[in-house]
Amino acid sequence: MIEFEIKKAIRNIPDFPKKGIDFKDVTPILLDAELCNNILNEFVERLKGQKFDYLCAIESRGFFFGTLLANKLQIPFVPIRKEGKLPGDTARFHYDLEYGSATIEIHKDVIRKGANILLHDDLLASGGTAYAASELIKSLGANVGAVSFLVNLSFLDGKKKLEGITNNIFYLAEY
Amino acid sequence: MIEFEIKKAIRNIPDFPKKGIDFKDVTPILLDAELCNNILNEFVERLKGQKFDYLCAIESRGFFFGTLLANKLQIPFVPIRKEGKLPGDTARFHYDLEYGSATIEIHKDVIRKGANILLHDDLLASGGTAYAASELIKSLGANVGAVSFLVNLSFLDGKKKLEGITNNIFYLAEY
Repeated sequence: MIEFEIKKAIRNIPDFPKKGIDFKDVTPILLDAELCNNILNEFVERLKGQKFDYLCAIESRGFFFGTLLANKLQIPFVPIRKEGKLPGDTARFHYDLEYGSATIEIHKDVIRKGANILLHDDLLASGGTAYAASELIKSLGANVGAVSFLVNLSFLDGKKKLEGITNNIFYLAEY
Repeated sequence: MIEFEIKKAIRNIPDFPKKGIDFKDVTPILLDAELCNNILNEFVERLKGQKFDYLCAIESRGFFFGTLLANKLQIPFVPIRKEGKLPGDTARFHYDLEYGSATIEIHKDVIRKGANILLHDDLLASGGTAYAASELIKSLGANVGAVSFLVNLSFLDGKKKLEGITNNIFYLAEY
């Protein structure tokens, strides 16, 4: 079962990036090419019958399965990046984090109005970044049709934060 | 021809990230799923008959085709990241840039000694980061068997910088 395989591969790193946080390191998953295939197939299965115009993925870990999934679905891939990383005209969204704040950006001229977007990131924690990314996408006149994660830290209740965006939120493993 | 298609997709962004630099924005390539397929097939063609144990890709733009190529070749993917991003035990390499310096890291415990590595990044400029990444890989007792780029800015002579590492350096488009 995919959830078991994913959790077996993920490493727990205590006190990263700061004391008290039990970090879930997804990078060992990428060492296992067969597991990656299985994850991609599972994503495709969950998205069956749905049509997306673009996949938007959140820097940097969202790029891992974001590029793979966009390629598997044969749809355009659009990166959402931290401030100052994307050249050219961008739309920006500023949001508050538990400590401090952040700004994310997307290219302004690539997503057409009314497009249906599959948003992807590796991990759903409090949902702040995925929420910000969704607002960014909506500011371009596009629609967030689904949000996919590898992992949900359900005790942080991020799914609730995203409920106003779409009820099509899914993940392959949960803590 | 793939070089023509790649160059047609790439956008020139003048004065990014700073005045005087003509930035090559590769992200429009990712909007074209068919072009991405063609690029992957071309990479595979160029690597025919060679065997790699891991693909290492450099954050963040190297992750785009790095994950895709590792998946296509069905080999383990290992990210090389900027300082402080990788949890757990890492090896680090500090290097000088044109202005200032940088440190990159790789997980210490994932690559076995003597392994043959395919290193990937989106763009070869002066070669400083790819050189640093190669030194990092060598410090783990592994061998850089090939270095692949989407694009080479040949007027910056990065290929020369990497000659001591391997003579198996290739790219699909050149300026």
